[in-house]
Parts: sequence; C-alpha cells; structure tokens
Amino acid sequence: MTHRPVMTIEELRGFVGEVFPQADIHNWVVDDLGPETISVTMKVSEKALRPGGTISGPTMFFLADVTAYLVILGHIGKVELAVTTSLNINFLSRPPLGDLVAEGRLVKLGKRLAVCEIHIHSAADNDTLVAQATATYSIPPR
Amino acid sequence: MTHRPVMTIEELRGFVGEVFPQADIHNWVVDDLGPETISVTMKVSEKALRPGGTISGPTMFFLADVTAYLVILGHIGKVELAVTTSLNINFLSRPPLGDLVAEGRLVKLGKRLAVCEIHIHSAADNDTLVAQATATYSIPPR
Amino acid sequence: MTHRPVMTIEELRGFVGEVFPQADIHNWVVDDLGPETISVTMKVSEKALRPGGTISGPTMFFLADVTAYLVILGHIGKVELAVTTSLNINFLSRPPLGDLVAEGRLVKLGKRLAVCEIHIHSAADNDTLVAQATATYSIPPR
Amino acid sequence: MTHRPVMTIEELRGFVGEVFPQADIHNWVVDDLGPETISVTMKVSEKALRPGGTISGPTMFFLADVTAYLVILGHIGKVELAVTTSLNINFLSRPPLGDLVAEGRLVKLGKRLAVCEIHIHSAADNDTLVAQATATYSIPPR
Repeated sequence: MTHRPVMTIEELRGFVGEVFPQADIHNWVVDDLGPETISVTMKVSEKALRPGGTISGPTMFFLADVTAYLVILGHIGKVELAVTTSLNINFLSRPPLGDLVAEGRLVKLGKRLAVCEIHIHSAADNDTLVAQATATYSIPPR
Repeated sequence: MTHRPVMTIEELRGFVGEVFPQADIHNWVVDDLGPETISVTMKVSEKALRPGGTISGPTMFFLADVTAYLVILGHIGKVELAVTTSLNINFLSRPPLGDLVAEGRLVKLGKRLAVCEIHIHSAADNDTLVAQATATYSIPPR
Repeated sequence: MTHRPVMTIEELRGFVGEVFPQADIHNWVVDDLGPETISVTMKVSEKALRPGGTISGPTMFFLADVTAYLVILGHIGKVELAVTTSLNINFLSRPPLGDLVAEGRLVKLGKRLAVCEIHIHSAADNDTLVAQATATYSIPPR
Repeated sequence: MTHRPVMTIEELRGFVGEVFPQADIHNWVVDDLGPETISVTMKVSEKALRPGGTISGPTMFFLADVTAYLVILGHIGKVELAVTTSLNINFLSRPPLGDLVAEGRLVKLGKRLAVCEIHIHSAADNDTLVAQATATYSIPPR
C-alpha cells in the first residue's frame, strides 16, 4: 500500500513557517510532494561554501534532514514533535557551487518510526549524486 | 554518466563460485544485472527463521552485503579483494516466511570506494520493503 | 544517571534459551554484565570462515546484534519483542581466525528506543578492533 | 598498537585556521588531544537554537564532523584533503541550551580510511549523552 500526502505544499510551507520562525533556515522550496516522495531545492549561500569552492557537509546534512522532515510531515500532518533519531549520510562527490536538489522517499511510515531515503544532486547536474542519506524520525503517539 | 556492467550474469556467478567455494553461501541467484543496478533472489532456509516465523537479521544483512558485492563486481570486473568497509541496515517490517529479493543500485563507483543502496522485499510482496541498506566497499588499487 | 542490570547473567541465558531454542545461535557466552555494559565471547566455527582465513561479515553483524540485544534485555528484563530497527557496522581490520569478543555499551536506554555501541576484537588480540557497530532497538510499550 | 598525536593543540589550531579562514566555523576549542582521543568544546550560539530551546541537529552534526577531522589531522599531520566519506549520527536526548563537548576516539587509522567515534554531551551535564556519531574519513595518498 502506498501512502499519500495529507497536506498540500502550501499547507506544509505554512506549518513549517509557524513552527520554525527563524528566517535563516527557510532557504529551501518544496518543488513536489507526491505519494511517498518529495523534491526540495535549497539555495546555497556563501556561508555554506568550503575551501576549493565546494559545499559544506553540515549544509548537505541539513538538506537531508529537512527533506526527511518535510516528506514525513506531508504524510502524517501537523505533528510538531517528530524528531530525528538518526541520520546516516554518505558524501559521494564534491558538488559544484550552486543550488542543491534533494529527492526524498519514504521507505517506512510506521506508527512510531518513519524512515526516509534522500538523494542529493546539484541543480546543475541531475546525473551525479553528491550525497545519499537515510534518516529515521520518531513520531510521537497521537 | 551511467556505469555499465562489464560482466554477464554467468561470468559473475562463475567468478564468485571460484572465490567462495563454500556451498552454504550460494543460496542466491542473480536475476538481473543492468547499468548500476542488480536484482538478487535469495532462498530462505529453515535455519534463517526466527521465533514468530520471521527471517533473521543476519540473513538480511548477508543478502544486502552480497547484493552490493555482486553489483560492484559486475561493474569493475574480477577483483577478489573488494571488501565491505561499512554497512548500515534499517529493518522496516517483519518479512513473511519465504524467499527474499534484493534490488541493488550503485550510488557511487569511484576508484577507491563504491557505495550501494539495497532495498529488500519478500518475493511474495513487491510493495512492502522489509529492509533498506547502504553498503560501502573499498576497492583495491588496480 | 547510570542504568543498572535487572537480570543476572544466568537469568539472561535462561531467558534467551527459552525464546531462541535453535541450538545454532547459542555459540556465545556472556562474560560480564555491568551497569550499561556487557562483554560477550563468540565461538567462531569453520562455517563462519572466508577465503584467506578470515571471519565473515554476517558473523560479526550477528555478534554485534546479539550483544546489543543482550545488554538491552539485561537492563529492561524479559521483553521478548525488542527488535533491531537499525544497525550500522564498520569493518576495521581483518580478524585472525579464532573467537571474537564484543564489548557493548548502552548509550541510550529510553522508553521506546535503546541505542548500543559495540566494539569487536579478536579474543587473541585485545588491542585491535576488528569492527565497530551501533545498534538501535525498538522497545515495545510495557 | 596505540597511535599517538603528531601535532600539538596549537599546531592543529594554526593549521585549521589557515585551511578554513571563515570565522564562523571557529566557535570551537580543542581541550585535549591524546593518543587516539580528543576533546572539543563548541560554543553554541543563538543561531543554533530550535523551538523549545534545544540545539539543532546540523549543529551537532558539525561538531561530530569537526571533532573527527581534528583527531584525524592531529594523528596524521597537515593533510588538507582528508574528507568525510560518511557520518552516522544518533540523537539520544535533547540537549539543554549551552555549550557542547565532544569526545572523539579513533577506532581505525588506516592508510586510506580513518574511522572515529564521537560522543557529545552538554558542558553542563557530563553524564547524559545527547548524540553519538561515527565518522569515516578518506585520507589521500601521501
């Protein structure tokens, strides 16, 4: 059985804006939210750069984590306290400067745990993965 | 750029039979080997069962590991000493008794490291993942 | 606050013997069970060997998993349905032939999740880690 | 055999200051560098806070990553291009506001790969781990 989103992209954006009012973590846009999948684009700022003109690890970690959070919320609704319990990330190639795109896929959506797989590539190059991650979220009892 | 296999399924089977002559680890069959992907079916024996009629974790670990090994070998050729450096596995649902199918995908094939994502489902149920894994292999200098 | 065991080594062995009656998975002995820690020795049989005289990955995965299970059970009592939700293992060096020792440490013992770190070395060489793992178990509601 | 540091804390700080000239990533101090171990304290700024008064996941990821980098550099010397290949992090409890301390331990220091285990706790509470991580770095040929 495939799970389907229970929120629209606009509802998701609105909810996250309420819960995380800090401006600096809103440099991302949900491009698509479908059954068990999501696509998120992140603007990469100067601050995220590293020597040699690449993008920092924590920036990619953040994108993986927020992508998992968004696809889970989009499928369970407004649950503020879903929290990351673990995240495993593999850095695969050095991304060029520029925006990043994360494709998230729910591989499990249980009552207590959700697991999401995330593939990150450069917006300028769809074919080369720069990072792959698996995130587990704990879902509070409803 | 997509990597393509450099061996056929028959060559792969023959090579692995030479390198791992123990009979008890050959309870699997490569169903398909394509560009950066593989499909492997494993016969699940009584020994792999656990109380409640489910399949043991080490059995699924083994299938994930062998699937990664086979897709990497299939793309780099006969390299005996490729070894697992790490494997991260998430157990998603209890598999029913019966054979397991692993779908492997190379997410990186570098000179020194290869990373493979593996999805495992029951042969009897294509839609429910029972485990998801990411394996990293170290490739010896050639 | 440090958690303390709620079972003796003998109680642990007795309970596991009831739950997992298969003989072939009892090739291990709990050497020590202390506050948040455990030490487990595993007999390594011929079956676990690999070409070049080393020990297979699934054997080490099994030892890591059983060590986590035992230290968790030892601290929460007789809970049959604690299940592995994820396990991340790093293979660090090739073990010589012979028995393996796993040192487990609870890094979290929550109501719903427990996380355990496991260090594996050869019984013949205390100083060289052959594998390091982190296992997460889901604990059913009590 | 235990590996010993080849740099002092001052040399380490000086080298990292040259390689990463951005000020905003220098909010940490190496408190101790010993054989295969390191202790790093990170100042936690307002920016790293999350709703409910806790510290963000990417902040802890960053601390785990930088701790691994520093203990590896401290043991191999001035190697600019050591890069993270993977990082697995478990979030164990919500840290209170305030500085964080990371204890790093090298579990492998090979020619090509180094693996480091990191335990993070709040500076105000030594006894409760807030995160546990394992990082793998690739070391370039020398």
